[in-house]
Order: sequence, then C-alpha cells, then structure tokens
Amino acid sequence: MAQTIDIHTHWFPEAWPDFGKRFGGDDWPQIRHAGKGKAEIYLGEKPFRQIDARCWDAQARIAQMDRDGVDVQVISPTPVMFGYQRPAEQAAEAARFFNDALLEFCARGKGRFQPLCQVPLQNPKLAVRELERCMKAGHAGVEIGTHVGPKNLDDPDIVAFLAHCAQVGAAVFVHPWDMLGCDRMPNHMMPWTVGMPAETHLAIVALIKSGAFDQLPRELRVCFAHGGGSFAFLLGRLENAWKKHSGARGRSALAPQEYVKRFLVDSAVFDAKALEFLVSVMGDECVCLGSDFPYPLGEEHAGQLIRESRLPADAKAKLLGGNASRWLNLSGSHPSPPRRGSGGAPTHVTQPAHG
Amino acid sequence: MAQTIDIHTHWFPEAWPDFGKRFGGDDWPQIRHAGKGKAEIYLGEKPFRQIDARCWDAQARIAQMDRDGVDVQVISPTPVMFGYQRPAEQAAEAARFFNDALLEFCARGKGRFQPLCQVPLQNPKLAVRELERCMKAGHAGVEIGTHVGPKNLDDPDIVAFLAHCAQVGAAVFVHPWDMLGCDRMPNHMMPWTVGMPAETHLAIVALIKSGAFDQLPRELRVCFAHGGGSFAFLLGRLENAWKKHSGARGRSALAPQEYVKRFLVDSAVFDAKALEFLVSVMGDECVCLGSDFPYPLGEEHAGQLIRESRLPADAKAKLLGGNASRWLNLSGSHPSPPRRGSGGAPTHVTQPAHG
Repeated sequence: MAQTIDIHTHWFPEAWPDFGKRFGGDDWPQIRHAGKGKAEIYLGEKPFRQIDARCWDAQARIAQMDRDGVDVQVISPTPVMFGYQRPAEQAAEAARFFNDALLEFCARGKGRFQPLCQVPLQNPKLAVRELERCMKAGHAGVEIGTHVGPKNLDDPDIVAFLAHCAQVGAAVFVHPWDMLGCDRMPNHMMPWTVGMPAETHLAIVALIKSGAFDQLPRELRVCFAHGGGSFAFLLGRLENAWKKHSGARGRSALAPQEYVKRFLVDSAVFDAKALEFLVSVMGDECVCLGSDFPYPLGEEHAGQLIRESRLPADAKAKLLGGNASRWLNLSGSHPSPPRRGSGGAPTHVTQPAHG
Repeated sequence: MAQTIDIHTHWFPEAWPDFGKRFGGDDWPQIRHAGKGKAEIYLGEKPFRQIDARCWDAQARIAQMDRDGVDVQVISPTPVMFGYQRPAEQAAEAARFFNDALLEFCARGKGRFQPLCQVPLQNPKLAVRELERCMKAGHAGVEIGTHVGPKNLDDPDIVAFLAHCAQVGAAVFVHPWDMLGCDRMPNHMMPWTVGMPAETHLAIVALIKSGAFDQLPRELRVCFAHGGGSFAFLLGRLENAWKKHSGARGRSALAPQEYVKRFLVDSAVFDAKALEFLVSVMGDECVCLGSDFPYPLGEEHAGQLIRESRLPADAKAKLLGGNASRWLNLSGSHPSPPRRGSGGAPTHVTQPAHG
C-alpha cells in the first residue's frame, strides 16, 4: 500500500529575526509566545492568528500524523511569510532564513516531512536564485502566492519562473494570499471563505486564458490549494464563455477543459459531495490529499474526507498518496509498506532528487 | 404538464432618454442602432456590449422561446441600467422609465412575459416607493444587484428593503454587477467568469453570516443568478469555517447549511455534472431554469441542460417550471396544458397578484 501524503500543511518556526526592526515596515510577521505551546502571530503590531506548537514542534506534528494515518507531510510557509510586498532584497533575505529553518525542521522529522521553499517572487532573478539554492539544499519544490501585487500568474516574469521550476524539477504549490476584493469583505473572515477560492480560481483562469499553459512545458508539476478554489464548479461557465464569446477566449489555443490535466488540486473542500464532484471534473489523477494542517480552517482529521467518500478504492489510493508521490517526483520504489500510526521512523520516504 | 419558465432573461428597450444629457455623468447606458436588428450599448462613450433585436423585439423573443420550448420568460433589466452609482433621484427617474417601458413591452408578449422592476437601491425610501408602484402596476418582483457601492446585501437598509419585498409579495432576483476585484481582472472577460460568481457567493454569504436570514421573514422569495455563483461548491468550506473558527461564525444563529432552503438559484451553470451537483446541494425545490437570454454567456438553448441531465423526471419538472411558479407566486391553477412551440397566445399564464 502506498504511503499517505498530506500535501497542504503549513508551519511557522519557533522564533525568527525581527525583520521589521532590521528592514523597517509595519507588516512583517512576528511571533509572541504565550506559554503552554500557544503563540500568536502579529503582522507588525496587528494580531493575525493564534497558533500552537504543531506549527513549530516536529513531535507534535508527528503525533497528529500518526493519529490520522498520514505518513508524510509536505510543509509550506504560511503565506504571510512571503514578503512579496516588500523590497525584493528584503524578501530574499527573509526567504533564505525561513527556507533554511524549514530544512532544519524537516531534518528533525524522521523522514516524515517534505519541505517547500518560498522565493522573492517580485524579482524573477532573485526568485530563481533562491529556488536553485533550495532545490540543491533538499527542498522538494516551492510554494508561491496567487499573485504579486497587480501581477497575476500569467505575468511573463512569473511564467518564466514557472518554466524554471519545471526545468529544475520543483513541485509548485499555489496558495491564495492577499485576497482580491477584500475591501468588500469587512467581517466574518469572508476573505478566507469568499476571497481565497476566488483568488485561486483567478490564478488558474489567468494561466489558461493567457496561453501560459500553451507555452509552459508539460513537465511542470503545479498544484493549487483548496481544491483549486471555485474553478471546478465554474469550469462550465468558463467553457461556455470560451465557446460563445471571442472576448472571453483570451489567447489560449484550446478550450479551458483541455487544460484540466495540466495541474493538480488538493482535496481541501470539506464536503464529500464536493470532493466527489471535484474528482469527476479533475479526474482521479489530479487531486491530492491536502488538509491545511494545523489551522482551524483545515481538515481536522487529515484524509478522513477521502477515506469516507464514495470514491472507488483505487481513486482513494491515488488521492491519498499516489498523485502526491508523482507531483513530488518521489521515487516509485517503496521497499517496505508504510507503517501507520507507529510513531516510529519509517524509512520508506525516498528523496532521490534532494535527499 | 406544468409550464416551462425561464427566470433569468434580460432586455433593453429599443430606445430611451439620454440620461447623460439630462443628468450629467459619463456612465449612463445608451443604445446605438446599427441596422438589421443589431445595436451596441455604450456606457457614456465607452462600448459595452453588442446586442440584437431579441433585447427589444417581443416577436423575436417569442420565436426563440417557441424553438426552445419555453412558455414564459421572466424579464429583468440588464444591470448597467441600475444607476446605483448615480444620485438616487436620477436612478429613481431612470427606474421609472425603464420599469414602465418593460410593462409595455410585456403587454406585447401575449402573456408569455413576466416583468421584474429595478429600484434606486442606494436610497431605501425611494427604492420602496418604486417597488410599490411597480407591484401595483403589474411587475412580478424586482431584480437587484449584489451590492450598492461598499454596502453588501447585509446592509441594514438593504435588509429592510428585502423585508419589504416579502411584505408586498415581490419575487427578488439577485444579479451580480460591478464585480469585486476587477482591478485584478484586466482581460479575457474575467469579471464575468471569475468576478461574477465570486460576487454572487459574497452576496449569499453576507446574508447568511450577518444573521440577515434570521431576521428576514421566511416568506421572502429570493433567487440568485448563475447557480448562486460559487456558493454551492464552497458550502463545505463555509460550513467547516463556521464550526471551527469563532471569527468565521458571524452573527448567524445556525450553521450555513441550515440556510440553504431560504433561497433559490437559477440553473445557469452550463455543465450537466455541475447542475446535478448544484441540485444535490440546494435540493430540487430551490433551482429554477435560468438561461441569461439573450446574451452570449447564456445558455444557447434554454432548458437543454436540465432536460438532458440525469436528474429524475420530477426534479426536471420542478426545475423547468414548478419552482419558478412558486417563486413568482403564480396561481397554481393552469386550466389547460401549455402549448409548446405554438407561437400562439397561451392563456394559461395567470397573474392573480399583478395581472
């Protein structure tokens, strides 16, 4: 049986430099510990999120993975760490710190963690440099946001960066951040429940309609968070518009439906019917378990939604690990079956490219 | 067999006053005829949309309805006619003109058309006054936008207006307009394919999370365009957030799922799987045929998606007309079966409240 891989988890280090002090700016993330494994993240002086030790404590993470039958977590930055809105050199320095800290953290994970780096995406040259450094150091790929300021993912610099990711074999995880239309979402966390899925949908549509997928190598392995936002449900609208209105065609060579196999999405949709619909649109090779661990808007028991769905057994296996293994380009050889809930140190996680 | 009712169609009159000249402002809609049943809508001097005679010619509409087996069209303003961004008195005067013109137009429709009025929603007193005038004159209800400037539908003035709609028995059709995040959607008609569904989702979420549905009478009959935008697919995410994070709860008494029966959505999702998923979430009593006739981003053959879906026959009948009949509060008595494709003058459309 293949291993179970949760491709959408986040972290914060237990401590990091005071970038606000070093660089200026009132929106750098800071952590304030409150004892008993609790802490609060601030952006400058503004409270952002209460977190707990599962963000920075490998044992706490592994304990929950064992509880949930997850063999491997792919660990990404929390998007407020990106610093895309800062001068690029500052974001590059923060990225170096966080990326090295994540590698160290993963080294404490007994082979159960796979790191994704962050890059200063506002500067293509620095972004490529940091990506290459990280891939050599052992990262499995990179997490990027859905945009950089006014630039969507179809910006030529970002498309060039994605092509570079394909070239160096980096898995790309696209996560919504700095959500569009937030001025219209003053309360009730609507940026998370309304803005995020729209943001991710926009990112996918921009890549399709701009013709970026036509230019990008098919080897690019890119996965979008939260089930791809609202994309799957709106594909019919997109397809109809493409066929019926020249203005909606953009520069894509093919109809939107034809690009579905060019990317993956995670399973974080929190509803069995929605998951089954998602798989019916995306195909069972393009959806990967993603829980958004350890945040409260994530899946409380990673993998439960997939396991309890009415999907066929082979589709479940693909979603729980097979597709992620392909996305991460893990070697296909798993000498021993994974040990579930053991709390031990499985040896089946092979990292040929970046061990 | 019940009649087939298309609840989502738009119109423009063949001609209307030059409101820009009368009131000033560079964004009033204007029509410029180009001969042979073609015209172009301008917003001030800016081209907006090419249209054809089906917008203003009752016979052209009825011919297509006969082709598609549609007995009745519910006709709404095209949202650029709203004038919500103008001083309220100006929008009120434009509304009076367009609403009276629509009544006259429907009178030429041989009982096949049901009019929805527009109101100056930026001013609650004027909005209520125009609604009451229109309901007495024969409108079946009102079409409103998803917001008025920064005010979402949970704004107290708008909630009070909705309560008034329930009181006077007006069906309410909510249509996206002036889409959020448009600064991030510079091309490829993404405001239509990305912005509109997000806009409608935001409108529904605002009504739920604010507690507006808790206050509003259950008699309110409100229906959202384009399948409710991305709401149905994102309900799992909304529900999970409501349960897991106090900040996402808002002021609603119940979990989001509990409000699903409080509103309807149309069927304009353009994909059979998406429609079947939509019905599985909303229930077969809360989805109505809506085609977005006569615009190119609409369903080319109104009702085809429903008829060719795998939904059971009784669900299809509800979607094709039963639910709309309830939403419009048409009398239940249909003395003779509807005549399909006759081009004649069916007598089965009864309008007890506003005949």
